[in-house]
This record gives sequence, C-alpha cells and structure tokens, in this order.
Amino acid sequence: MKVAIYGYGNLGRGVESAVLKSNDMELVGVFTRRAPESVKTVSGVKSYHASELVAFADKIDVLILCGGSATDLPLMTPELAGKFNVIDSFDTHAKIPEHFDRVDARARETSHTALISCGWDPGLFSLMRVFFETALPDGNTYTFWGRGISQGHSDAIRRIEGVRNARQYTVPVPEAIGAVRGGETPELTTRQKHLRECYVVAEEGADRERITREIVSMPNYFADYDTSVTFISEEELLREHGGMPHGGSVIRNGTTGFSSENSHNIEFSLKLDSNPEFTGSVLVAYARAVQRLSERGEYGCKTVFDIAPRDLSPKSAEELRRTLL
Amino acid sequence: MKVAIYGYGNLGRGVESAVLKSNDMELVGVFTRRAPESVKTVSGVKSYHASELVAFADKIDVLILCGGSATDLPLMTPELAGKFNVIDSFDTHAKIPEHFDRVDARARETSHTALISCGWDPGLFSLMRVFFETALPDGNTYTFWGRGISQGHSDAIRRIEGVRNARQYTVPVPEAIGAVRGGETPELTTRQKHLRECYVVAEEGADRERITREIVSMPNYFADYDTSVTFISEEELLREHGGMPHGGSVIRNGTTGFSSENSHNIEFSLKLDSNPEFTGSVLVAYARAVQRLSERGEYGCKTVFDIAPRDLSPKSAEELRRTLL
Repeated sequence: MKVAIYGYGNLGRGVESAVLKSNDMELVGVFTRRAPESVKTVSGVKSYHASELVAFADKIDVLILCGGSATDLPLMTPELAGKFNVIDSFDTHAKIPEHFDRVDARARETSHTALISCGWDPGLFSLMRVFFETALPDGNTYTFWGRGISQGHSDAIRRIEGVRNARQYTVPVPEAIGAVRGGETPELTTRQKHLRECYVVAEEGADRERITREIVSMPNYFADYDTSVTFISEEELLREHGGMPHGGSVIRNGTTGFSSENSHNIEFSLKLDSNPEFTGSVLVAYARAVQRLSERGEYGCKTVFDIAPRDLSPKSAEELRRTLL
Repeated sequence: MKVAIYGYGNLGRGVESAVLKSNDMELVGVFTRRAPESVKTVSGVKSYHASELVAFADKIDVLILCGGSATDLPLMTPELAGKFNVIDSFDTHAKIPEHFDRVDARARETSHTALISCGWDPGLFSLMRVFFETALPDGNTYTFWGRGISQGHSDAIRRIEGVRNARQYTVPVPEAIGAVRGGETPELTTRQKHLRECYVVAEEGADRERITREIVSMPNYFADYDTSVTFISEEELLREHGGMPHGGSVIRNGTTGFSSENSHNIEFSLKLDSNPEFTGSVLVAYARAVQRLSERGEYGCKTVFDIAPRDLSPKSAEELRRTLL
C-alpha cells in the first residue's frame, strides 16, 4: 500500500521511520506547507509542497496527517478526508466529538475512510479503558501519564518573558500510583495524581523568582499541580533533557463474584524512549486498517474502537490464530 | 439480550455472576448433562438437562459454553454452533486452527455466529500480542503466567497413586521477568521462564519420595521445569491454597528509529483473585459482541482478533468516544 505524510516535524519523522520498517508499505512522499526544497527527509524520500497534493489523488492509499491538534488538524483532517483516506492523532480529548462529526460528514460524502485520535493516548490507552471496563464492569480505572516530556507544557514555559528554553516532565505521584497498583480505589484530585517538573534556561539577568511565580500559577497548565522549577544551563538542558521520552499506565481495580468478593487488578503500561516515534509506529499500524476498511467500502470516520485487531497486522487471519492466539 | 450457560462448574458459576452484573442481559437458564435437579444454581436461575436445549432455539441469543478444552469443547462447540450463537474458552493453543475450521463450517452452514478461545489467555493476552507486535514490529514479546493455580497441573498430580489432594502454582522466574521488564531481550528456555510449586496431601503411609519423583519427572507437565514439592495437611491445603488466583504478563521490548536507536517497553499484566470469575466476565463481554455480529449477519467462527472493541461495551459509540477515547 502507498502512504504519504503530511507535515514533517517530530511526528512526521516518527511516521517516516515506521513506514520504512513496514514491508507492505511504500512511502510516496512527504507534503509540507513550507518550501519543499528546505525540507530534507531523513530517508531521502521526496518532499512536495502541500498544494501539489491534488495531483496525488490516485497515488496515495492513506495520507498520514502529522499536524498539531490545536490549530492544524481541526481544519486539515476534515478538508483532506474529502480527497484521501486519512489518519490523524488529534488529542484534544474534549473536542473529539466535534472533530469526529466534521470528519465523518466529509468522508461519507466523498466515500473515504478516516481514522482520528490515534496514537497511545488517545489510542492504545483508550482501547485499554474499553477492554478493562468491559472485562471488569464493577471497578475503577486510573490513567497515569509519565514520567515524560509534555511538549505543550514545555512550550507554555517558553512563552514566558525571560525564558530562553525549557522542558517539562509530567510525573505520576508515587504514592498515588503505588496505592492503585496495590489494589486500592482512591478518589484522586488532579494534584494528587501528577507532579510537574520544570527545567528552565533563563535569559541572562532575567528575574528567576518572577519566572517561577509565573510558571507555578499558570492556569490549566500548572496551577492545579505541585510544580518544581529548576534553573539550569542550556548545555545541561540539551544534554540531560534533550530526548522525548514518555509513557504511563492505565490501571483498573475491580471485583467479581456474587458478593463482589474477589478482586482483580489489570495494568497496561508504556515506557517510551521516543514519544513521536512510538506514536508514529501506532499510526502506521492503523493506517493499514484504514486502507482495508476503505477497500471493503467501510467509509466515514472511525476511531480505534471501530477497528478489529486483525486489520492492524500484515499477517493473515490464519497466521494470527496459529501464532498469536 | 438472552444468554444461557452450558456446563456448570467453576467457569459456569463465573459466567453466571458476570451475567447478573450486566444490565443488558437476561440469564435464561443453566444447561447441564447431569441430573438438573442435582444442579442448584447460586442465583436461583433454573437448571435444565442438556437434552432440553432444542426447545430453546428461539429463546437464547448467545449460549456460553463452559466445558473443558480436553474432551468437551472439541465436540460441543461445533455441534451447538449449528443451533445457537455460541462462545467458548477453548484453550488448547495447538489445536485452535482445527477447532476453528470445524466451528466455522458448522456456523456458516446454519447462519450462526461463534467465537472461540475467549478469556484471558487465549483472549486478552492474545489481543495484546497482536497490538504489541503491530505497534512495535521490531521487537520481542514474552508471555509469563502466574503466580497462579494451574488446574491441569493440579489434576495431573492428583492422578498419582498415594496423592489425596494437590494444588500447583505456576510462577514466573523472578530473574527472567525482571530482565524482560528491564528492557532486555533474552532467549529463554521453558525452565528459565517458569517455576512449578506443588503442594501435596499424601495418603497416610504413602511413599513421599516416590510421589516427588513421579511429579518432577512427569513429561510435558513438570520434567522441563524446576519443580518444588511440599507435603502439607489437607486442612492447610484448603486454608492456604483453596482459592483460584492467577494472572500474568505480556511484555514486549522493541525499538524504533532510522537506526533502531530508541527502545520501548510495553506491558500488560493481570492479578486475579479468581481465574474462573475473571474468565467468565470476559466471556460475557464477548457474548455481547457475538450477539451484535449475529444481528448484522456476520456469521461463521470468530476470535477476539475479529471483534472491534466498541462491540464489547453496552455504551453507544458516541458515549465511548466522549468518555473513554
């Protein structure tokens, strides 16, 4: 199958490296809104300007959209779902229903298949929340993120005056995750679930106390959390905090039995060296499913909840049953 | 939807208690090959003789088969798939392809939907093996079982002369699971992966040394493992080892990146107080999917690989997207 990438940042490169590892896929090209001659791909695959996409209508089976959720994907996915089978990693949880409806309308009108909100959360973690709740209806599910770099929170710090660079780690509170792993079902506030660790490079002469105050009091991003701020040099930031690790756990504690007398604990956890590469790898597996649904005439917008696991694998159904069931 | 249970042992009771917790299901009855008046159900639902099933053809949406994999299900599932939508927990991995083909033929002929090999392994663990391999094609998957009671191994010990009762725990070797959790990808032999702990009640005057020798040298069951044998009293066995706990982990370590330079670790783990109740609970969730497939005319034999997660949940697709994606 022929795939192409739209948007060439960290996620785009993650998708590129994952496509190269998939024997059943060919990478047609990378599409960008920048000047294509300025976009050198790691694999050497050709980059094109986004405006050239129209010429590729019959040459791309699935277009993998690697834009951001804040401003790119809300416009990009519905529009491109009118011309291609598409997949995105839209991750603004509260706006998923609205995004779904717009993509669904456009994809149905034009007989395309789209899959939104794919990756690990939303994505694999969402799947686990459904499997856990259906396997163990009587219980509580907890999602913990980290320890890992949050791009959005790092960006928010970088917008503060006097900040030259910054990295923010989201960290599960050890007592909270320990209690849940131990089978407890506490009610946890936002503050009780996660810590925020900030590593900040200040401009020379900047007021560090003011920067710290602005960070820890920032609404939505930090005000509801216990936040630590550590000032370090640019060299240390790049050396010690230059990667994009992430991860987390979905945990459910529940009971079964005529008197709810038996307890069960289910956990799914990820430890990732590279968030964008793992996300890209998941997108590529689901792009395979998008192509198969499209071939079967299953049009419209889908999510990971709509995909049978067999459609993710290059192996035949027989081989899956024989080797992995 | 109307469900019924065929076979009323530990698993049958597990299914019974799970159906009672599912608001969208009604338990029609329990069918047994024993004298039905001797089978008192925990919930009080009526028990019928298996021969009465013919009268229930239009009164049962899904029949949940709770027989054993050794001799019951290979005959029972294909036969009953000719009269009902059915689901089973057939767990003889090597014979799944053959079982699948026979059930598939019968179900297609008669326009029924069947789902085989459901539970947690095969079942949820199988799903994880597919998700992990497709999300991270470059890597190694490990499955560890336990610490938990193996019914088959306990039975094998009980068949030895001079043994009155026995319980066998399957236990992952701590060094092996530790290395895999730490990101290593060792080649592990059967002996390096699991230990077998046996608690045995001997008949009075029985030769304990002979019993121990017969256990540790038993082919397939124990000869390939490091096995410990501890003789205890019947009282201690019932008090300390009377439950049916189980669990385990599926772990994959893999890499991504243009030079495979980034490592990732994925783990799914279960800690279960009651193996049959959790298995029963998973069967009930998949019975819901069997009913939906049947309503859509998707006949034939299926496995967990063929089921979209959305079909497991009593919630609507909209609600799943809004609350769990």
